[in-house]
Amino acid sequence: MNTRGYTKTIPRFVNCDSWESGIVVQYTTKGKLSSTAGQVIRCKAAVSWEAGKPLVIEEVDVAPPQKMEVRLKILFTSLCHTDVYFWEAKEQTPLFPRIFGHETGGIVESVGEGVTDLQPGDHVLPMFTGECKECRYCKSTESNMCDLLRINTDRGVMINDGKTRFSKNGQPIYHFLGTSTFSEYTVVHVGCVAKINPAAPLEKILPEGLGATLNVARPKKGSTVAIFGLGAVGLAAAEGARISGASRIIGIDLNPNRFEDAKKFGVTEFVNPKDHDRPVQQVLAEMTDGGVDRSVECTGNVDAMISAFECVHDGWGVAVLVGVPNKDDAFKTHPVNLLNERTLKGTFFGNYKPRSDIPSVVEKYMNKELELDKFITHQVGFSEINKAFDLMLRGESLCCIINMEA
Amino acid sequence: MNTRGYTKTIPRFVNCDSWESGIVVQYTTKGKLSSTAGQVIRCKAAVSWEAGKPLVIEEVDVAPPQKMEVRLKILFTSLCHTDVYFWEAKEQTPLFPRIFGHETGGIVESVGEGVTDLQPGDHVLPMFTGECKECRYCKSTESNMCDLLRINTDRGVMINDGKTRFSKNGQPIYHFLGTSTFSEYTVVHVGCVAKINPAAPLEKILPEGLGATLNVARPKKGSTVAIFGLGAVGLAAAEGARISGASRIIGIDLNPNRFEDAKKFGVTEFVNPKDHDRPVQQVLAEMTDGGVDRSVECTGNVDAMISAFECVHDGWGVAVLVGVPNKDDAFKTHPVNLLNERTLKGTFFGNYKPRSDIPSVVEKYMNKELELDKFITHQVGFSEINKAFDLMLRGESLCCIINMEA
Repeated sequence: MNTRGYTKTIPRFVNCDSWESGIVVQYTTKGKLSSTAGQVIRCKAAVSWEAGKPLVIEEVDVAPPQKMEVRLKILFTSLCHTDVYFWEAKEQTPLFPRIFGHETGGIVESVGEGVTDLQPGDHVLPMFTGECKECRYCKSTESNMCDLLRINTDRGVMINDGKTRFSKNGQPIYHFLGTSTFSEYTVVHVGCVAKINPAAPLEKILPEGLGATLNVARPKKGSTVAIFGLGAVGLAAAEGARISGASRIIGIDLNPNRFEDAKKFGVTEFVNPKDHDRPVQQVLAEMTDGGVDRSVECTGNVDAMISAFECVHDGWGVAVLVGVPNKDDAFKTHPVNLLNERTLKGTFFGNYKPRSDIPSVVEKYMNKELELDKFITHQVGFSEINKAFDLMLRGESLCCIINMEA
Repeated sequence: MNTRGYTKTIPRFVNCDSWESGIVVQYTTKGKLSSTAGQVIRCKAAVSWEAGKPLVIEEVDVAPPQKMEVRLKILFTSLCHTDVYFWEAKEQTPLFPRIFGHETGGIVESVGEGVTDLQPGDHVLPMFTGECKECRYCKSTESNMCDLLRINTDRGVMINDGKTRFSKNGQPIYHFLGTSTFSEYTVVHVGCVAKINPAAPLEKILPEGLGATLNVARPKKGSTVAIFGLGAVGLAAAEGARISGASRIIGIDLNPNRFEDAKKFGVTEFVNPKDHDRPVQQVLAEMTDGGVDRSVECTGNVDAMISAFECVHDGWGVAVLVGVPNKDDAFKTHPVNLLNERTLKGTFFGNYKPRSDIPSVVEKYMNKELELDKFITHQVGFSEINKAFDLMLRGESLCCIINMEA
C-alpha cells in the first residue's frame, strides 16, 4: 500500500532538473502514488564509459522498478575505494559502461510489484549487499550473507530479469553492486534497502568497519584494541572500539600522516611497521604485556592479516578480518597460535543484516552514541564527481560526500 | 581447616599395602587429620626409567605436600596418548626417571600450608592444567590458560621449590604434567585439583574433547557437526555434539574400524578420506549442502586442521582445533575462507577452568546427561600397567582403566 506521495504533473520522461531540490524530503504521510511511478525517468548520472577514464555526467533513462525492486532518488552519495577499484578494473573483467557508487542515502520514488514494506517517500539506505529474509543465511541468527542478494561485484544487471534499468539512447548501462548511486535515480532490489528514521540526515554514511568491532570483535570495556589500516573502514572500526569503551586503541598504518586524523576517532597510540625492525605483532605484544585483546584488520594485505591474528593475546584474543585480500594470497600461521585460545574470524558488512540491523545503527547516530560527522573530510557537487576520484587517488580524502543537487 | 580424616595408626613410611581397598571412600565428614600427614609415604609407583622401555613397579617415597600442594591417594587412573608420547620421548628432551599418568580420580590424603578449600577425604580429579584463581587468565571469563599452572610438559618438578616429591633411595623421580598418577600416592598443586561430588565414581574419566564441543563449538540443536579423529578425544567431542542435540554427527578417520565404536557416541555418518580422490572438505560440503555447521579437529594433523576449517559452512561455520600439531606445521588457507564469516578457534582443555567448571561436568554425568561408561574399553590392574601401553600402541583401546588396587 502506498499512502505517501505527491501529485506534481511530470511528463513521461522526467528530467531531474524539474525537481526542486529537496522536494522529496518534504513528503508528508498522506498523498498518492508518485506520478512518475511506472514511467521511465530521465535524469543525470555519472557514467563510467571506460576503465580508469573520467566519469561523464550524462542524461540517462532509468526504467521503472520491476518485481521486488524500488526506484530511489539519491540526494547524497560518497566515493569508496571499492568504486575506484572496479572503475580501474585492473584485476577484474571490465564491465562498461557502468554507473558506480554504493554508499548513499535516498528516498523511495516508487516501488515495484510485491514490495509491501516500503513506499514512496520513505528514507532509505541502499546497500551493496542484501537481506531477502527467506534464505537460510537470512534465517540464521549467525549470518548476514544472504544467498540471493549477497554482494556480487561481477553482476551488472538486476536479478529479476538479468537486464539493466539504466540506458542511454537504448544502450544498456551496467549497474554496480546493485546500487549504482552515482545517478540522481537508481533502481535497487528491495532487499538491499534499509528503511531508516526520516529525521536522520541522509548525507551521513554508515561505515562498515563499525560492525566488525561492535558485532564481531566485541571488545569489553577497558580492553585494548588494535586497528590495522586507518582508512575509512579502519577508523569506523576504531569508532566501534571507542563506543565499546576500549581504553587503548592502537592504530597501525604505514602512513604516519594518518595518526592526527585517527586521534579524532579515539585512536590512542600509533605504530608504523616501517619504524621497527621486527614484526609488528612482536612490537604490539611488547606494548601490551603479551598481546591486544582484540584486533581488526582493514587493509586486505595478507601480511597485515597474519600480524593482526598473531598480535592478539593468547587465552582470549580475537582477530577480525575485514579487508579483502588478493586472489592468490595465503593466510599462514603456526597452528599453536590457534590452540592457545586465539580466535580468528572474518566478517562481511560488519555482520549487519542490512534491513534488520541498519535502522538501529542509525538510531545510535541519532542519539549521539555514534559519531559520523568526523568521517566527512570533503564535499563536492555531483558535476565535480571526478574531483572526488582525484582526492581519493591522492589519498587526501577519508570520505568525500557527493551532493547530487549541487 | 581439616575436619575429615581417620585415625588409623600408620608408621613413618606408610606402605600402601596396609591400606584396605576402598577405605578412603568410607570417610565421614567428621574426623581428624590423616595420621600420615607431614610424613613421607612409601608406596608403589610405575616408574619409567628410560624412554620407550617398560615401566617398572617400584616402591617409591612420596614426600608430604608443601605450600599450596595436596597429596592424593590414587584409586584409578588411565592411560592417554600424551603419556605414551612423552614416554616414547621421540621429539622431546627426555626427562627420566619419571612417573607418568594424568587422567585419574583420587582422594585427598593431606594438604600443605595455605590450602583452605580442600581437606583429607575430599574426592578430587587432578588435572594436567590448573587454575590459580589469581592471574589474569583465571580472572578472565574468556580463558582457562592459567599463567601459573598452565600445562608444562617439560617441567618435572613442583613449582614451589623446583624439586620432586618422588624419590627412590634418595634419587629424585620426575613428575609429569604436575599429576604423575601412575603412583598410589602423588603430590599435586592445589590449583590442579577439582573437588567433585563424592558420590561420583572415580574411575570415570572426563574427556577433554567434550568441552571443545560444548564450550567452544557450541552447536545448536539440529545442526551438523564434523569430528576429525575418532580416538578418545574425538569421541568425547562427538558426545558433546550428541548432548547438544546435533542431528548429524559426521566422523572422519583414516581407520574404518573406528566407525562401529563411534556409533555408540552418536556418530551418524563416517567419511574415510582414503576413500575419496578429492579433498575431504569437498566431500563434506557435498554431503551437507555447502558445509557443516561446526567441526572439531582432534588429530593434530595439520592437513586435517585445514580440512576441518574449510569444511565449515560460510556465514556461520565454526571450526575448533583441539589436536596438538607438530612444531614445524603451518596452517594455511585462503583468507577469503575467513572473510566469508567462518570462525577458527583453538581450545585448550575444552576451555574448562579446572577447579571452577569441572565439578559441574561431573554433575552432568551424575544426572545421566553425559555418558562416560562407553569410553572404557579395557581395564587392567596396576601391576599390568605395561599391558595398557601395549593395547594403546596396537590401537586396540580407547580408554584403558588402571585399577591401582588390583
